Amino acid sequence: MNARVTPEGTMEVLSRHEVSLLKDRSKKGLYDLFRQCALAVLNCGNESDDSKSIMEEYKDFDIKLVNQPRGIKLQITNAPSSAFVDGEMIKGIKEHLFSALRDIVHANSVLVKSSEFDLNSSDGVTNFIFHQLRNAQILEAGTQPNIVVCWGGHSISRMEYNFTKKVGHELGLRGLNICTGCGPGAMKGPMKGATIAHSKQRNCNGRYIGISEPGIIAAESPNPIVNELTILPDIEKRLEAFVRIGHGIIIFPGGVGTAEEILYLLGILLHPANQKLPFPVIFAGSKENESYFKMIDRFIGGALGEEAQKRYKIIIDDPVSVAKEIKTGIEEVAQYRRVHRDAYYFNWLLKIDPLFQQPFQPTHENMANLQLHREQPVHILAANLRRAFSGIVAGNVKDDGIRRVEKFGPFEIHGDKTILDPLEGLLESFIHENRMKLPGKVYTPSYRIVN
Amino acid sequence: MNARVTPEGTMEVLSRHEVSLLKDRSKKGLYDLFRQCALAVLNCGNESDDSKSIMEEYKDFDIKLVNQPRGIKLQITNAPSSAFVDGEMIKGIKEHLFSALRDIVHANSVLVKSSEFDLNSSDGVTNFIFHQLRNAQILEAGTQPNIVVCWGGHSISRMEYNFTKKVGHELGLRGLNICTGCGPGAMKGPMKGATIAHSKQRNCNGRYIGISEPGIIAAESPNPIVNELTILPDIEKRLEAFVRIGHGIIIFPGGVGTAEEILYLLGILLHPANQKLPFPVIFAGSKENESYFKMIDRFIGGALGEEAQKRYKIIIDDPVSVAKEIKTGIEEVAQYRRVHRDAYYFNWLLKIDPLFQQPFQPTHENMANLQLHREQPVHILAANLRRAFSGIVAGNVKDDGIRRVEKFGPFEIHGDKTILDPLEGLLESFIHENRMKLPGKVYTPSYRIVN
Amino acid sequence: MNARVTPEGTMEVLSRHEVSLLKDRSKKGLYDLFRQCALAVLNCGNESDDSKSIMEEYKDFDIKLVNQPRGIKLQITNAPSSAFVDGEMIKGIKEHLFSALRDIVHANSVLVKSSEFDLNSSDGVTNFIFHQLRNAQILEAGTQPNIVVCWGGHSISRMEYNFTKKVGHELGLRGLNICTGCGPGAMKGPMKGATIAHSKQRNCNGRYIGISEPGIIAAESPNPIVNELTILPDIEKRLEAFVRIGHGIIIFPGGVGTAEEILYLLGILLHPANQKLPFPVIFAGSKENESYFKMIDRFIGGALGEEAQKRYKIIIDDPVSVAKEIKTGIEEVAQYRRVHRDAYYFNWLLKIDPLFQQPFQPTHENMANLQLHREQPVHILAANLRRAFSGIVAGNVKDDGIRRVEKFGPFEIHGDKTILDPLEGLLESFIHENRMKLPGKVYTPSYRIVN
Amino acid sequence: MNARVTPEGTMEVLSRHEVSLLKDRSKKGLYDLFRQCALAVLNCGNESDDSKSIMEEYKDFDIKLVNQPRGIKLQITNAPSSAFVDGEMIKGIKEHLFSALRDIVHANSVLVKSSEFDLNSSDGVTNFIFHQLRNAQILEAGTQPNIVVCWGGHSISRMEYNFTKKVGHELGLRGLNICTGCGPGAMKGPMKGATIAHSKQRNCNGRYIGISEPGIIAAESPNPIVNELTILPDIEKRLEAFVRIGHGIIIFPGGVGTAEEILYLLGILLHPANQKLPFPVIFAGSKENESYFKMIDRFIGGALGEEAQKRYKIIIDDPVSVAKEIKTGIEEVAQYRRVHRDAYYFNWLLKIDPLFQQPFQPTHENMANLQLHREQPVHILAANLRRAFSGIVAGNVKDDGIRRVEKFGPFEIHGDKTILDPLEGLLESFIHENRMKLPGKVYTPSYRIVN
Repeated sequence: MNARVTPEGTMEVLSRHEVSLLKDRSKKGLYDLFRQCALAVLNCGNESDDSKSIMEEYKDFDIKLVNQPRGIKLQITNAPSSAFVDGEMIKGIKEHLFSALRDIVHANSVLVKSSEFDLNSSDGVTNFIFHQLRNAQILEAGTQPNIVVCWGGHSISRMEYNFTKKVGHELGLRGLNICTGCGPGAMKGPMKGATIAHSKQRNCNGRYIGISEPGIIAAESPNPIVNELTILPDIEKRLEAFVRIGHGIIIFPGGVGTAEEILYLLGILLHPANQKLPFPVIFAGSKENESYFKMIDRFIGGALGEEAQKRYKIIIDDPVSVAKEIKTGIEEVAQYRRVHRDAYYFNWLLKIDPLFQQPFQPTHENMANLQLHREQPVHILAANLRRAFSGIVAGNVKDDGIRRVEKFGPFEIHGDKTILDPLEGLLESFIHENRMKLPGKVYTPSYRIVN
Repeated sequence: MNARVTPEGTMEVLSRHEVSLLKDRSKKGLYDLFRQCALAVLNCGNESDDSKSIMEEYKDFDIKLVNQPRGIKLQITNAPSSAFVDGEMIKGIKEHLFSALRDIVHANSVLVKSSEFDLNSSDGVTNFIFHQLRNAQILEAGTQPNIVVCWGGHSISRMEYNFTKKVGHELGLRGLNICTGCGPGAMKGPMKGATIAHSKQRNCNGRYIGISEPGIIAAESPNPIVNELTILPDIEKRLEAFVRIGHGIIIFPGGVGTAEEILYLLGILLHPANQKLPFPVIFAGSKENESYFKMIDRFIGGALGEEAQKRYKIIIDDPVSVAKEIKTGIEEVAQYRRVHRDAYYFNWLLKIDPLFQQPFQPTHENMANLQLHREQPVHILAANLRRAFSGIVAGNVKDDGIRRVEKFGPFEIHGDKTILDPLEGLLESFIHENRMKLPGKVYTPSYRIVN
Repeated sequence: MNARVTPEGTMEVLSRHEVSLLKDRSKKGLYDLFRQCALAVLNCGNESDDSKSIMEEYKDFDIKLVNQPRGIKLQITNAPSSAFVDGEMIKGIKEHLFSALRDIVHANSVLVKSSEFDLNSSDGVTNFIFHQLRNAQILEAGTQPNIVVCWGGHSISRMEYNFTKKVGHELGLRGLNICTGCGPGAMKGPMKGATIAHSKQRNCNGRYIGISEPGIIAAESPNPIVNELTILPDIEKRLEAFVRIGHGIIIFPGGVGTAEEILYLLGILLHPANQKLPFPVIFAGSKENESYFKMIDRFIGGALGEEAQKRYKIIIDDPVSVAKEIKTGIEEVAQYRRVHRDAYYFNWLLKIDPLFQQPFQPTHENMANLQLHREQPVHILAANLRRAFSGIVAGNVKDDGIRRVEKFGPFEIHGDKTILDPLEGLLESFIHENRMKLPGKVYTPSYRIVN
Repeated sequence: MNARVTPEGTMEVLSRHEVSLLKDRSKKGLYDLFRQCALAVLNCGNESDDSKSIMEEYKDFDIKLVNQPRGIKLQITNAPSSAFVDGEMIKGIKEHLFSALRDIVHANSVLVKSSEFDLNSSDGVTNFIFHQLRNAQILEAGTQPNIVVCWGGHSISRMEYNFTKKVGHELGLRGLNICTGCGPGAMKGPMKGATIAHSKQRNCNGRYIGISEPGIIAAESPNPIVNELTILPDIEKRLEAFVRIGHGIIIFPGGVGTAEEILYLLGILLHPANQKLPFPVIFAGSKENESYFKMIDRFIGGALGEEAQKRYKIIIDDPVSVAKEIKTGIEEVAQYRRVHRDAYYFNWLLKIDPLFQQPFQPTHENMANLQLHREQPVHILAANLRRAFSGIVAGNVKDDGIRRVEKFGPFEIHGDKTILDPLEGLLESFIHENRMKLPGKVYTPSYRIVN
C-alpha cells in the first residue's frame, strides 16, 4: 500500500532543521529511527511479535516527509495493508505516525542537546521524561487522578483476554482511564472494555494512553484505539513514565515482560524513601489464573520477602472488586498528593534509584555479571532480577536481542541457588503455559540458568 | 435504588402544562405511559424479554418530576439496580430517560391536538413521524447518507452475536452509523463493534440510534450505548421510522420479529411506486447461518415470488463484503436522491401503503381474519403476512399480547395451504432453533395454524 | 444582489408540508410574511426606519426555497447589498434568515392549529410564547439568571449611543448577556459593548438576543451581532417575551417606543399580584440625559403615582453602577425563584393582565376610544396609555400605520386633562429632541391630542 | 489588589526545575523578568507609556508561584486594580499572565541551553524564534494565510483611532486576523473593529495576536482582547516575528516607533534576495492623515529611493479598499508559497540580514556611531536609520533608555546632511503632532541631530 498522509492531531509544524534531521539517513540523522517506528505503527493488524522478521518482511517500506504550505505530509510506500480500510489509512494509525514523529524529533533535537538535562543524574533523567511527556500532552493539569496502568502479557488466552476486557469495562464505567504498553492481549483488552463503558457514560474524552519505546514497538504495535501514544527513548524511561503518570497499576497474567514489570515496580516501592507513599497495585485474573498468581506470589515471597508481598493485592474472578479497589486506592493517592502538594499528573515524590534508570544493555557479558545474591538490599536485588527478565525479553522479541542470541547462543544467568531455583521454576512454567511467544510458535529459550 | 436525576442531553425545558400532563395519573394524563417507558429504560441490564413479568417485578417503581429553577429533575424510587454503577446512574441511561420524556410529551400534547396531522391519511402519518423524529433531533441536515439499519433477533447465539459485532466493526471503520430497535442480540452487537471502530477512526460523533415503541421497549430495553433513543407511538410508526431514515438495511438471523420486519420491508419495496427506488438490503450471517437464510429465502420465494427475492442479497461469513456492499448501495441511494432532490435525512419518495401504517391490534378476531391467500397483489399479501408475525411477537413478549393469549388461548391463523405450509415450517424451525424466546425458557406457542 | 444561501444554525430540516406553506403565495400561505421578514433582515445596513419605503424600494426582491438533499437552501434575488461582503452574505445575517424561517413556520403550522393553545386565554397566550421561545432555543436550562433587557430609542445621539456601549461593556465584563428589540441605537450599542467585554473575558457564548415582530422588524432591522433572533407574531407577544425571559431591564433614552415599553412594564409590575415579585428596572443615561429622565419621572409620577416611581431607579452618568445595580437586582430575582421553585429561564410567576396580551389594532377608532381617565385602577390606566404610545409608534414607523395616517390623518387621542397635558408635554419634547424619527427627516405628527 | 489566579489556557504544567527558576530572585533566576512582565500585563488599563514610572508606582507588587496538585497557581499582591472587575481578574489578563510565564520559561531554560541554536548565526536566530512561536502555539498548520500585521502609533488622535477600528472591521468581515504589538492606539483599534466583525461573521476563532518584548511591554501593555500573546526576548526578535508570521502589513500613522518599523520592513524587503518575494504593505489613514503619509513617503523617497517606494501603497480614507487590497496581496503570498512549497505559517523564504537580527544597545556611544551616509547599500542604510529610531524610542518610553537620557543627556546622531535634514524634519513634525508621547505630557527630546 502507498499513501500520502496528512496529519491528524497536533505536531504538523516542524522547523526546517527538524525536517532535515528526519530526512537524514546517516548515523546523525533520525530517518532510520523514524522509519522503524513508523513501520511498527502501521503494522498494527499483524499478530507477529518478532521485530526482526517484521523488519525483514517490509524491507521495501519507505516513508518521506513532504513539505506543504499547510504543514508536513508523509509519503508512504509499501506499507502493511492492515493499516488501511478500503485504501484509506485508519485515522488512529495516522495519529500514531505523527505521535512517533513528534516524540522522536523532540527527544533528539533541542532536548538532547540542552545542558538542562544531565542524563547521568537521577533528576536529569526524570526531568527529561517530564519534558517528553509534557510535549506529548500526556500531562494534563486540572483533572483528578484517574489513570490506571494495565500490565500483562501480549500473548494470553482468549479467556484471559475476555477477562481483561471485563475489568476495562468496569474501570471505564467508573470514569477511569487506561494506560498500557500498547500491543495486543492484556494491553488491548482493557482499552476495548473501557471504550464501550466510556461510550455508555457519554465520556468522549476517554484516554487510552500507550507508552512504548523503539526497541519494543515493532513487537507490540499500538492498537488504533490508543489515542495518546508516546515513545520514550528506552525501556527504562518507558517504565519510569508508567510509574510517574499512573495512579494505580493492575497486573494481568503475562510472561517474562510482565515479570520484569512486576520486579521493576516492587523494586521501586521497596526503596526506603517510598515506604509511606500510597500506590495501589492489584494482580487480577479469572478463576483459571488463580494458580498462576499463587506461583508469582510465592516467587516474590521467596525472592523479596513479605514486605514486598504487602505492596499488592491479588483479586481473582471479580472485575467489579478490581475496579472498586483501584478506585479507592487512587483516592488515597489523591489525598496524599494534596497533603504533600505534589502534582496529580506527575509523581515527583516517587524516589527511583539510578539503578532502575540507567539503560541496561542485554549483552551476554552484562547478563552473565548480574548480581543475583542476598548480600544486598532487597530493592537492589529486585533491580537485578528485573534486568535478568529484561534481557530475556530482548532475546525473545527485540530485533537486537534476537540477533545476539542467534549469534552467541542463550544468555547465561548466574547467582544464589535460593534465587535461581524459584526463578527457573517460574520461567519454565511460562514456557509451559505458552507465555513466551504468541501461540503457534515453538519457543527456543534465549537464556540458560547456570547454578 | 432511589435517585434524583438531572437531565443529560436536551429536553430539560418543559412548560407548566407539560409538567402537569406528565404528573397526571388519570387516563388523560401521561404518567402511566412515562412510568412504563422509564422502567423499561432503567431495566437495561436485565436479560428478560417478558414485559409483563418486568412490570410486576417492579410494581413499587415510581418516578416523579421535580421543578427546579435550572430545569426539570426526576426523582426515582425503587429502580432496577442495573442502571447504576456504585450508586450513580449510568449517563447513557439518564439520557434515555429524558429522551422518553421528550418523545412522550411531544407526541401527546401539541402534536396530537393539532389539526395539522390527519392520522387516518398516509401523508398525515408520515408527517407526524417526521415531526417526532425532527423533535428528537434524529434528522440531521448537512451530512451524507450513512445510516445502516440492523435488524435481527434479540435472542441469538454467542457465535451469531460475535458475527454481528464484526459486521458492526467493519461498518464503523467505513464511517457508517448504526440504527437498531434497541435491545440485546443483533440490536446490540453491531453497535458495540461500531463503537470500537469509530474509536479507531477518531469518530466522536458516531450515531447509535435506537427506535422503540412503548409496547416493546420493556422487552427490548435500550443498551446504554444507544446515544439517540426515540420512542414512536406504535409498532407501525416505529417500522416506518426505520425505513424513512435508514439508507440501507442489514438483516441478521432472528425469529418472528425479524420475519415481521422482513415482510414489512419487502411489502413496501414491492409496491409498484417503489420499483425504481434503490434500497440496499442484505441478509448477513456466519457460516452456521447459511441454512437459516436458505430457509428464509425459500419461504419468500414461495410466498412472494422471484421479484421479492431480487430485493435483497445474501452474504455469508464475510463481514467485509457486507460492509462494502451496503456502502455501495448507500452511494446509489445518495445519487438517486440528488437526482430527485429528495432529502438525505428522510426518505419522502418511499411510497408506503396505508395497510402498513394503520396500527394492527393483535386480537384473536383480527388474527383469525387475516387474508392469507393469493387473490391479492403480492405487496398486500406481504402486509398480511407481516401482521401474522406481528401478532405472534405480541403473544410472545408484549404485556398486552401475553395477557390475551393467557386468557383466550393461542391465536388462530387461517389461509391458503400454499402459504400456510411454508409459514408453519418456518415457525417450527424458529422454535426448534430457540429463536422465539431468550434461552433457558420453554416456549409455548402463542399461535395455531389452522389449515 | 443575488445569492444562494445555505443555512447557518439550526432549522434546515423542513417537512414537505412546511415547504409548500412557505412557497404558497396565497392568503393561506406564508410566502408574503416570510418575504417581508427576510427583506427586513437583509436590509440591516440601511439606516431608514420607514418600513413602507423599504418595502417599496425593494419590490423586486424575491426569496425562494430550494430543496437539496442536505437540507433547505434559499435562493435570493435583488437583495439589499448591505447584507454582503465582497459578494458573500454575512454569516450573522444568514442565521437571521433561517431564524425568521423557523419562527414563522413554527408559529403558523402545527402550533396555531393545535387546540393546546387557547389564544383568548391569558395562560394560552403565555404557553404559546413559551413554545415559540423554546423552539427558538432561547430558553436555556442549567444556567444562572443573566439576561439584561435593554430598551431605548433607535434614534439617539452619538453621545447617547456611546453611553449605551459603555453600559454594555460593563455588563459584559460581569458575565451578563444582552437582549434587545434589534435595530440600531440603544438596541445595538449595549451589544457592541458587551461583545468587546465578552471577548476580554474569553466568553465565547455571549448571548445577544433580539426579539422582534413582523410589523416592526423592517424598521428595526436586526444587527448581525444578534446571535439569537426570534420573531414573535405581534407586538404584545414580543413585549411579553421580554418580561418573561429578561431578569432585569435597563431603559436608555428613547422616544415613543421607549415610552410604550416603560408603560407596558410599569402596568404589569403595578398589578397587585406582582407586588412582591423582584424585578430590577434602571433608567440609565449620560450627564446630558439627566433632564430627559426627570421629565419621564415627572410624567410617571403625575400619571401613575408614587408607587410606580418605586419600581425603578434612575442612574446618571455611571455605567459601572448601572451594571452593579442590575447584577444585584438579578441576584434577588434568582433568590426569589429558588424559594418559589420557578424556572430561571421563564418568569411563570409574573402575572400579566389580558389587557396587555390582546393585540391592539391602532385604527383611528380604537385610538379615539382609549380610556385615559382616572376612574380605573392604575395598572389599567397604564395599559391604556401604553396603547396610545403604541398607536403613535405605528403611525411613525410601521407600514400599516403609516398608510392609515396618510389616508385618514393623524390619530385623535381623548381623555382627562390631568393626563393629556403631561402626555402632550412629553410628546412635544420628544419631537423637539428629534426622538420620533431618525435624524435628517422632518417629523409630521401621527397623532393629535384632543382636550 | 491581591488575588490567587488559576491558569486559563495552556501552560499550567511546569517541571520542578522550572518552578525553582521562576522563584529564583538572583541574577541567574527568572523572578525579576517574570515580575516585570506580569506587572506590565496587569497594568493594561493604565494609559501611561512610561515604563519607569509604572515600575516605581507598583514597587510593592509581588507575584508568587504556588504548587497545587492540579497545576500551578499564581499568588499576586498589590496588583493594579484595573486588571480586575468587582475583585475578579479579567480572564484575558489571566491568560496573558500565563502566556508571559510560558514564554519566559521556554526561552530561558531548555532553549537557551541547547546547542541546537547558535544565536550568533542568522539561521540560529530564526530557528530560535520559530521554536518560541511554535511553543506559544502561534504557528497554526492547516489554515490559509490570513494574518494582517497592523503597525502604527500608540499615541494617536480619537479620529485616527476610529479609522483603525473601521479598517479592523473590514478586515474582520473578510475573515482576516489581526496581529499587533499590543498596547493602545493603532494596536488596539484594529482588534476592536475585527472583534465586532468576527462576531457578525460568527467567527469564534478570531485571532488577535500580540507580540511584545520585556523592554516595551510595560509601555504597551496588551489589551485584554489580545487572545494570543507572545513575548520575544528582544526588539529585534519581536520585529522578526512580525515579518515571519504576518502575511501582509498595514501601517497606520504613528511616531518614531512606527518609523522604526517602516525602516525595518523596507530594509528587509530591499535585500536583493527578497526582490521577487510578494509582501503586501499598505500605509493607511483617514483624510486628515494624507499630509502625514506624504511626508513619510517623501522621507523614504529621499533617504532610500524609488525602489523602496514601490514596496508599499498609500490608501487614504477608504477602509474597504485597504481590506480588499491586503486580501489580494495575501492571495499572492499564498500562491507564491504554494509554488515554492514554503509554509503558510512561517515565512522561511524571507532573507533577513544579521544587521536586523543582532540586538542594538541604544547607548550614547552606539547612537553616536551610527553610519548614516550614502556609501553603503540602501538596505544597510535602512538598517542604520532603523537603529536611530530604535534608540529614540528607548529614550522616550523604555525604562533603561529613559534612565540613560536622564543621566547623560539626549543621544547625539551624526551623518550626511542629505539624510539628517529630512530625518530632523520628520522628527520635528512628530513632536509637533504630539506623536512622541501620550497626550497631556510635555515632550523633551531624547535625541539631538548633530550636523
